[in-house]
Amino acid sequence: MDNKIKVVQYGLGPIGKEITQYLVERDDFQIVGAIDSDPMKLGLDIGELAGLRVPHGVCVTDNPKSLLSTTNADIVVLTTTSSHQKIKSQIIEIVSFGINIVSTCEELTHPWLTNPEIANEIDIAAKMTNVSVLATGINPGFLMDFLPLAMTGICCNVKKVTVERIQNAQFRRVSFQKKIGASLTTEQFNEKVKEGTIRHVGLTESIHMISHKIGWKMGKTEDIINPVIATDRVTTTDLTIEPGQVIGVSQIGRGYVENKEVITLVFKAAIGESNPHDRILIEGTPGIDMTIKDGINGDIATCAITVNAIPAVIRATAGLRTMANIETISYSSQKS
Amino acid sequence: MDNKIKVVQYGLGPIGKEITQYLVERDDFQIVGAIDSDPMKLGLDIGELAGLRVPHGVCVTDNPKSLLSTTNADIVVLTTTSSHQKIKSQIIEIVSFGINIVSTCEELTHPWLTNPEIANEIDIAAKMTNVSVLATGINPGFLMDFLPLAMTGICCNVKKVTVERIQNAQFRRVSFQKKIGASLTTEQFNEKVKEGTIRHVGLTESIHMISHKIGWKMGKTEDIINPVIATDRVTTTDLTIEPGQVIGVSQIGRGYVENKEVITLVFKAAIGESNPHDRILIEGTPGIDMTIKDGINGDIATCAITVNAIPAVIRATAGLRTMANIETISYSSQKS
Repeated sequence: MDNKIKVVQYGLGPIGKEITQYLVERDDFQIVGAIDSDPMKLGLDIGELAGLRVPHGVCVTDNPKSLLSTTNADIVVLTTTSSHQKIKSQIIEIVSFGINIVSTCEELTHPWLTNPEIANEIDIAAKMTNVSVLATGINPGFLMDFLPLAMTGICCNVKKVTVERIQNAQFRRVSFQKKIGASLTTEQFNEKVKEGTIRHVGLTESIHMISHKIGWKMGKTEDIINPVIATDRVTTTDLTIEPGQVIGVSQIGRGYVENKEVITLVFKAAIGESNPHDRILIEGTPGIDMTIKDGINGDIATCAITVNAIPAVIRATAGLRTMANIETISYSSQKS
Repeated sequence: MDNKIKVVQYGLGPIGKEITQYLVERDDFQIVGAIDSDPMKLGLDIGELAGLRVPHGVCVTDNPKSLLSTTNADIVVLTTTSSHQKIKSQIIEIVSFGINIVSTCEELTHPWLTNPEIANEIDIAAKMTNVSVLATGINPGFLMDFLPLAMTGICCNVKKVTVERIQNAQFRRVSFQKKIGASLTTEQFNEKVKEGTIRHVGLTESIHMISHKIGWKMGKTEDIINPVIATDRVTTTDLTIEPGQVIGVSQIGRGYVENKEVITLVFKAAIGESNPHDRILIEGTPGIDMTIKDGINGDIATCAITVNAIPAVIRATAGLRTMANIETISYSSQKS
């Protein structure tokens, strides 16, 4: 097939590797390059890196400029960092070669209010070479912003939007369990919150995406992090947590219009959480109370939507897009 | 405000009147004309027609050509018929004036497979004057096509899509109850199904929208209608229904790929239905089981999404769009 979409995978951490697997499965994509700054990955075949049975014939480079100037890629899948500060120079370089970008960078999902300068700079750079840049993922990117926004589309009046994402971390990988503070003391947890190492990135971005599209002028936003404490002893494959220790994180984002709370985002992930689910509540006409049983697995969903977004990003109007102003992203069965 | 969007309301049946109410409430729209072929409505003020307390200052005409050539409208809200055959000439005339269209015409939500000639003709005509045409609504348009498609966006694999829309017609208007066959005998019901007067229009269009976007090549589609029969006596404000008589309709749409059922759409509306809800099930990775408690009120939602779609239609790429290839439609708080 000559009309395959040519993709460069930039960033080969856990998410980049899983995305590589999905890219390889699809018949409409061809991986034409891979980039990572880790010297341990340099020169490795991405098939092997991503845990595929056979080499894929594309090896990791640490030189974006040389790769991007020669591969004629249609799009770069950029999975290097959560920070828009850090990702900016990578983006400016990629779009300068006239190449579209889809990224999992949480802070880039809606940077127009948190960092309008970076948003503008990326937007202008992308427009100059007529390409599009989109950051997506399950959360931020879908569950706490795109999906509630899409649901408001059937309302003639909306007073408040509430989203709950309640996850049981019992069977997640130990790195995820540690990321949410499991097995720490409350003091250690609070220390890590202060350091910024325990934090779900994206509640503020989701609040901004919703409010911006609906036209609510946000007075202030909050993002409050608390530990979830074990009342009984809890064990997982890797951890034993005593009563009084931390089993997870509970984070609440709030958006206000003139001191009235109009957006509430509840993110909770804890080991042994008994009622995992995702839920969207809209106070309005009609009212909406929608629940996803057991909730959505975040890692799979983030990698899937990033890959599924590729055709929509290529077709999109040039500039920095958000999930609120791009065509519906859906699965495509173009499998090899 | 000079930058209000200028809207013509074309069709003033129950849906057109409700849409008029929502248009008037919004600060970003200005109704600049109204069209209906009913001689009883000719010359009436649309504010009075739509049940508003005050006249709106726009009167109904039956002459689209004269109105559209003079009003400089940005968009026509077209709510005249469910049939793409009947609506085609209206659309061709409207777009010839360089005016965008959002319509509630069910058969127009995805006519590319049911009637590719009409779809093409409309698409080409719209592109010639650089405007967009979209048909939307709760169903078809949102619940059984857009929303399941959007949910597949977070899946790396989809095997089957099932949607259930189960409604309790107990407290709906009597015209809706009659439309679903309430109080008929089974023979009368079957006669009306044969005539085509009992039928929820849109299951086939929803199947096509899903399969087309996912890339499934539909082998055949089915649309099967059955009566729901009262087992006990049922009463509503207007009707008394004896055991054995019809209390509603149960309609199932099925889409097959190589004799495998990959799409199942269940639409049931009956008086006294005990568990009304909307539900989307996706067999895939990850699997998704999402339920909207009590289900969505169809009339409000159809009118709301039609109005909410207006800015997206105006911004869209020219041609005949579908809900699967237009930016996310959401509520806007631009109220007067």
